[in-house]
Amino acid sequence: MELKENERIDDLQINNLKIIQNKNWFCFGIDSVLLSGFASEIKKNSKILDLGAGTGILELLLSAKVEGAKIVGAEVQKEVADLAKRNIKLNNLENRIEIINENIKKIPLNMQFDAVVTNPPYKEKNTGLVNDNNIKLISRHEIEGNLEDFIYSASNALKDRGTMYMVNRPERLVDIFEYCRKYKLEPKELQLVYSRVNSKPVLILIKATKNARKYLKVKGPLYIYDDDGKYTEDILKIYNKI
Amino acid sequence: MELKENERIDDLQINNLKIIQNKNWFCFGIDSVLLSGFASEIKKNSKILDLGAGTGILELLLSAKVEGAKIVGAEVQKEVADLAKRNIKLNNLENRIEIINENIKKIPLNMQFDAVVTNPPYKEKNTGLVNDNNIKLISRHEIEGNLEDFIYSASNALKDRGTMYMVNRPERLVDIFEYCRKYKLEPKELQLVYSRVNSKPVLILIKATKNARKYLKVKGPLYIYDDDGKYTEDILKIYNKI
Repeated sequence: MELKENERIDDLQINNLKIIQNKNWFCFGIDSVLLSGFASEIKKNSKILDLGAGTGILELLLSAKVEGAKIVGAEVQKEVADLAKRNIKLNNLENRIEIINENIKKIPLNMQFDAVVTNPPYKEKNTGLVNDNNIKLISRHEIEGNLEDFIYSASNALKDRGTMYMVNRPERLVDIFEYCRKYKLEPKELQLVYSRVNSKPVLILIKATKNARKYLKVKGPLYIYDDDGKYTEDILKIYNKI
Repeated sequence: MELKENERIDDLQINNLKIIQNKNWFCFGIDSVLLSGFASEIKKNSKILDLGAGTGILELLLSAKVEGAKIVGAEVQKEVADLAKRNIKLNNLENRIEIINENIKKIPLNMQFDAVVTNPPYKEKNTGLVNDNNIKLISRHEIEGNLEDFIYSASNALKDRGTMYMVNRPERLVDIFEYCRKYKLEPKELQLVYSRVNSKPVLILIKATKNARKYLKVKGPLYIYDDDGKYTEDILKIYNKI
């Protein structure tokens, strides 16, 4: 497959998967990898929806982690969705993964999915550093859809007892819980991801199940780096477990 | 001071404070100590309310940690409140601490307090192991007041921008956030307390401020024990910082 300007191709070192990314856009980070690990308990042959697919990283990782899963990825930005489609083709996964170029608020897919995964824009509109290019801006800030939209859409897409898996920043936790309850997604698991043993958390992983009974399990901490600055065993396991 | 049947006296090893406890009742644990450390930022000379005072442990610790603070402790159980009063007297702190024997739902103290601290019963009614004696039961289970009552009362007692500090179990986090927002206490800080570096969290510490703007800071983890099973430096600091 031919690369366009500013594109590079990376080997995901998993099932021979490869991904093309645009150096000027948002490139996938450890949050996608962690989310794929957190969601890897999804049962085989499940129907999975990814809200905010980006260039398709979660689709690729989950195709390897969840045997037989059929995955739909929704991405609002046309250029990004096009690249995601090329990535699916590059890996010959068209029979398992479909990318649709649509705003997550407009997906008319009611209660069909066993699971939703989402790595939504972390930042509220007009907060923090604003990215200098529009594609990065929409990937990181709530321009095309805010947190409530993502959670509403997740709930709408899930069948009864279906489960949403989300990665986000710690400061969004109160809002996430509020919107989850508002839309009948009961938070069932929370895990805090710390950069190191004695640092502040950098990410949170949340599992919420539609119409489930109330009981939150807070898992043990996940550390990204050990004292020597190397990936911890937990992180290596997430990479390898695939 | 004379001890009654089943009572013992402990030296808190802080400011020469001593506490009498009844061996058959709920005796204070590390949660009270952690909460006193978490709340030790309360400004000097503040008016502090403790909802669910027990035998007065938080009152004693905070009198040492917060210079000049005036503290009111509300305790619903008459025998327990009586023991708390004896503990205040034992330490000659009657001029700074007042214990009232009242259900937290009935305290008519509106918007007077700079801070509220609370270590409420952790367990919902009819869940988990039920204690075989009534005093322990009421201390641990939501018999006389549930989580929502405690948060409602905290909000009611606090002045504008006043702050509540709570210790609780991780599984109550979603409910705590929900009730906090319901009663205009915005969660501002969360800290997870892990028994050890690689174990599940055992406690959560929450700071919520009345009518504050939304922004949650999740602090670094607090570990109780190190690899050798000894208290970590963080815990020793909380004990000594007083």
